[in-house]
Amino acid sequence: MAKEGEPWEWRMSFPDGMSMLFVSECIPHTPGFVVGLLGLMQSGWRYGTSEPRKIIHCFKVGMALCLVSLFYYVDPLYEGVGGNAMWAVLTVVVAFEYTVGATICKCVNRTTATFIAGALGVGVHWVATLFGKEWEPIILQGSVFFFASSTTFLRFLPSVKTHFDHGALIFIFTFILVSVSGYRMPDLFDFAQHRLSNVAIGTSICVVTSIFCCPVWAGNELHSLILNNMEKLADSLDAYVAVYLRDDADDMKKEASKEKLVGYRSVLDSMSTEESLVNYARWEPAHGGFSFKHPWKDYLELGALLRSYANCIDTLSGIVSDTKAPAFLKRHFSTVCLKLSLNSSAVLRELVVVVRTSAESPKIGLRQKEMCVAVQELHNTLKVLSNQNTVATETKPEEFSEGKGESVLPFVAIVQLVTLSSLLIEIVARTEKLVNAVNILAHKVTNSE
Amino acid sequence: MAKEGEPWEWRMSFPDGMSMLFVSECIPHTPGFVVGLLGLMQSGWRYGTSEPRKIIHCFKVGMALCLVSLFYYVDPLYEGVGGNAMWAVLTVVVAFEYTVGATICKCVNRTTATFIAGALGVGVHWVATLFGKEWEPIILQGSVFFFASSTTFLRFLPSVKTHFDHGALIFIFTFILVSVSGYRMPDLFDFAQHRLSNVAIGTSICVVTSIFCCPVWAGNELHSLILNNMEKLADSLDAYVAVYLRDDADDMKKEASKEKLVGYRSVLDSMSTEESLVNYARWEPAHGGFSFKHPWKDYLELGALLRSYANCIDTLSGIVSDTKAPAFLKRHFSTVCLKLSLNSSAVLRELVVVVRTSAESPKIGLRQKEMCVAVQELHNTLKVLSNQNTVATETKPEEFSEGKGESVLPFVAIVQLVTLSSLLIEIVARTEKLVNAVNILAHKVTNSE
Repeated sequence: MAKEGEPWEWRMSFPDGMSMLFVSECIPHTPGFVVGLLGLMQSGWRYGTSEPRKIIHCFKVGMALCLVSLFYYVDPLYEGVGGNAMWAVLTVVVAFEYTVGATICKCVNRTTATFIAGALGVGVHWVATLFGKEWEPIILQGSVFFFASSTTFLRFLPSVKTHFDHGALIFIFTFILVSVSGYRMPDLFDFAQHRLSNVAIGTSICVVTSIFCCPVWAGNELHSLILNNMEKLADSLDAYVAVYLRDDADDMKKEASKEKLVGYRSVLDSMSTEESLVNYARWEPAHGGFSFKHPWKDYLELGALLRSYANCIDTLSGIVSDTKAPAFLKRHFSTVCLKLSLNSSAVLRELVVVVRTSAESPKIGLRQKEMCVAVQELHNTLKVLSNQNTVATETKPEEFSEGKGESVLPFVAIVQLVTLSSLLIEIVARTEKLVNAVNILAHKVTNSE
Repeated sequence: MAKEGEPWEWRMSFPDGMSMLFVSECIPHTPGFVVGLLGLMQSGWRYGTSEPRKIIHCFKVGMALCLVSLFYYVDPLYEGVGGNAMWAVLTVVVAFEYTVGATICKCVNRTTATFIAGALGVGVHWVATLFGKEWEPIILQGSVFFFASSTTFLRFLPSVKTHFDHGALIFIFTFILVSVSGYRMPDLFDFAQHRLSNVAIGTSICVVTSIFCCPVWAGNELHSLILNNMEKLADSLDAYVAVYLRDDADDMKKEASKEKLVGYRSVLDSMSTEESLVNYARWEPAHGGFSFKHPWKDYLELGALLRSYANCIDTLSGIVSDTKAPAFLKRHFSTVCLKLSLNSSAVLRELVVVVRTSAESPKIGLRQKEMCVAVQELHNTLKVLSNQNTVATETKPEEFSEGKGESVLPFVAIVQLVTLSSLLIEIVARTEKLVNAVNILAHKVTNSE
C-alpha cells in the first residue's frame, strides 16, 4: 500500500490478458483513506482472481442468508418460528463455513448444544421455582455461575477444544438464555422449543447449501495440500542442489527457480491448517474417492514427516547459501549429489502418485533401490575424496593448506560438501520414513473402501 | 484413557504431596461412558493443577455472566435495555477471551460493527420504504445479498481476517437483523439503538472484568513464550551435543535430559500462537514494563528466527541420533564442540536476559567474541583432523580403511563429526541473526518508553 503523499498505482489484470493501470497523478492530493480503500480493493481483486472458489462461497453465503430471511417476510413462516427468526439468521451467519466439514461440525455442535442446554435450562428453572420467588434468582445465578465456569474450563482442554469448542459456547449462551429468561417468561418450554427449531432451521439451510451447491470438501483440500507440499519439497530440494552445484544455470533459470527455492517454507507453516482440515474432514460424508472411514488422522503423521523433511531443507539452505563449491571439487560431487537429490525427489514425486491414486505403486520399490544405490555411491565418493585429499595435501599445499590461514576456501568447501552429502543422506532417511507412512496410508485406504 | 473392559486407574495429586488412587476394580464392569467421563475429569484435574490461571479465568467468566444476567432480574435495568438483555449476555459469552488484548479486540470489533451495521440497516430500510410495500422486500433482499457476500469476501483477505474477522461477522448479522426486522418493527431506530446499547453494556462488563480482575495480558504471555522458547533451544542444543559426545552421563542424567532434548519441538509449533498473541498485544494499554507503543511486531521476527534455529536442531537430532562417536575421534572434538555449543547456548541465555530486562547487555559482546573464538578453534580442529586422518590412513588402515567395506564406522563417524561441526557453525550464524534482532528490539523498546 502506498504511503500518503506518495504516488500510487493500481493495475487491474483481466483474464483475457488486458490490463488497466490507474495512477494517482490523475487525482492530485489523494486523501489517505482513499489510498487505503484502493489498496484493499487491489488486494481483493488479486485474491479474487486467484481464488475463484472463494467468490462462489461468498455468493452461497448471500443466498443462504436471503433464504433464511424469508422467515421474516412470509407470514406463515414468521408465525411458525414464533417471531424468533433472528436465531435462524444468526445460525447461518456463524455456522456457514468455507468447507462442508467445518459447516457440519459447527451445525452439529450448535444443534446438540442448544438441545442439551435448553433441556437443562428448563430443568434448572423448574427446580428454582420450587424454592419460591425469593430463592429463585439466587439458585438461577448459582447455576449460571457453576455451568458457565465449568464449561469455560472444559473449553481449555485440548480434546474438547478441537471438537466441541463452538458447542460449549452455544451451551453456555442457551443455558443462560433459557434458565434466566424463565424469570420473565410465562411459557418457558415454548421459548426453548422455538430457539431449538430456529437453530435447526438455520443449520439445515447451512448444511444443504454447503453440500449441494458447489461443495468445498475439507477432505479434498487436505488431500491437495499434502500433495502440493510434497511437490514443493521435491522442487525445493532439486533447486537448492542444482543452484549450489551447477554453474551452467543462466540468470533466467535462476529467476525461475527462486520460487521453487522458497517453496519449502510454506510447508513449515502448514501445521495449523492441516490440523483443522483433518478435524473437519472427519465430519464429512463419503465424497469423490473418499469413503466416510477414510483414514484422515494419518494425514497428520504425513504432515509432520513433511515438515521434518522441510527442516532439513531449511538447514541445507543456510549451509549452501553463500558460497559455491570450487570447480575442482565439484567434479567429484556434482554428478553423485545431483543423482542422489534427483532420486530422492523422484521418490517423493512417486509418493505423490501413490497418495493421489490411493494405490500402492510398483515403481516405488525400484525408485527406493535407485536412491539407496545413489547413497552408496555418495559414500564411496566421500571415501575417494578422503583419499584424494591425502594426495592433494601432499601435492597441492597451496590449495588445501591445513596449517595456513590464507587459503581457507577449499577447506571450507570440503566441509560444506561433506555437510551437503550428510544432509542429503539425512533427507533420504526422512524420505524412507515418508515412504512407510504413505504405504500404511494406502493400505488403510484400500481396506476402508 | 483406558479402553472399555480394561482396568483403569485415576490418581489425584494434591499440592501438599498427598495423592489418592482410584482403581476400576472397585466398580466391576464400568460402563464405557463412565470411563470416558473419568478420563475427561482426570485430564481436567491435571490441566487445572498445572494452569491455575485458567481456573481463575473460568471464575471471571462466571462472575461476568452473573453480573450481566442481573439485567434480567432487576426491573429498572430490564426496562432500560428494552427487554433485549440477551444481546448483552451473548456479547459476554462470545467476547470474553482469556487475554485482555483478545477481549478488547473482540469488544471494539463488536461495538464498532454493531454501530456501523445498525446505521446502515436503518438507512437501507428507509430507502426501501420509499419504493413502496411491494418493492421493499426485494430491495431489502438485494441489499442483504450484496452486503453479506461482499463482507464474507473481505473476511478472506489476510489483513481483514487478522484484525476484523469478528467485526465482519457481527456486521453481517446486525445489518440483516436491523434492515430485515424493519419489515415487522414499528420503531426500527429504537430497536437498533437497543441492540447497540446492549452490546455496549456487554463489552463494558467484559473489558472491566478482564482488566481489573487478575488480568492476563497477551503481551506478557508473548514475552514469556519467546523467553521460554529461547531457553528451550539453549537446553536442547546443550543436551544433544552432550548426549552425543559425552559417555560419562549415567542413565539418570539421560532420563533428565530427555525432556530437554525434545524441548525444541514446541518451538517449531508455536507460530500460530505467536501470531495471535502479537495481534492481541497491540490492542492492550500500557501494563507492567510494556508501553502502549511496545514494538510487538518485532516479536514475530524473533519467533521466526527461533524457529529457523530449531530447524537446525531438528536436523542435528536426525544426524546424531543413532550412532555415538568412537572414543578416539572424540578426543579431538568433544572439548571444542562442547565449548562451541556451550558458548552458543550461553549467548542465547544472555539474550534471554536482554529481552527480559529490555536493556542492552554489556556481556553480549563478550559472549559473542567467545563464540567466534570457539568457531575458529573448531575450524582448526577440523584441519588437524584432516592432517591426522592422513596420518591415520597411513598407520591404521584397519580403522580408517577407505577402500574396504568391513569397517565403515570410523568413516561414518568422521562424516558425522564434520556434519555436527558444520551444523554447530550454522547454529552460530543463526545465533548472530538472533543477537541482531534482539538488539534492534531492545533499542526500539528503549526509544518507545
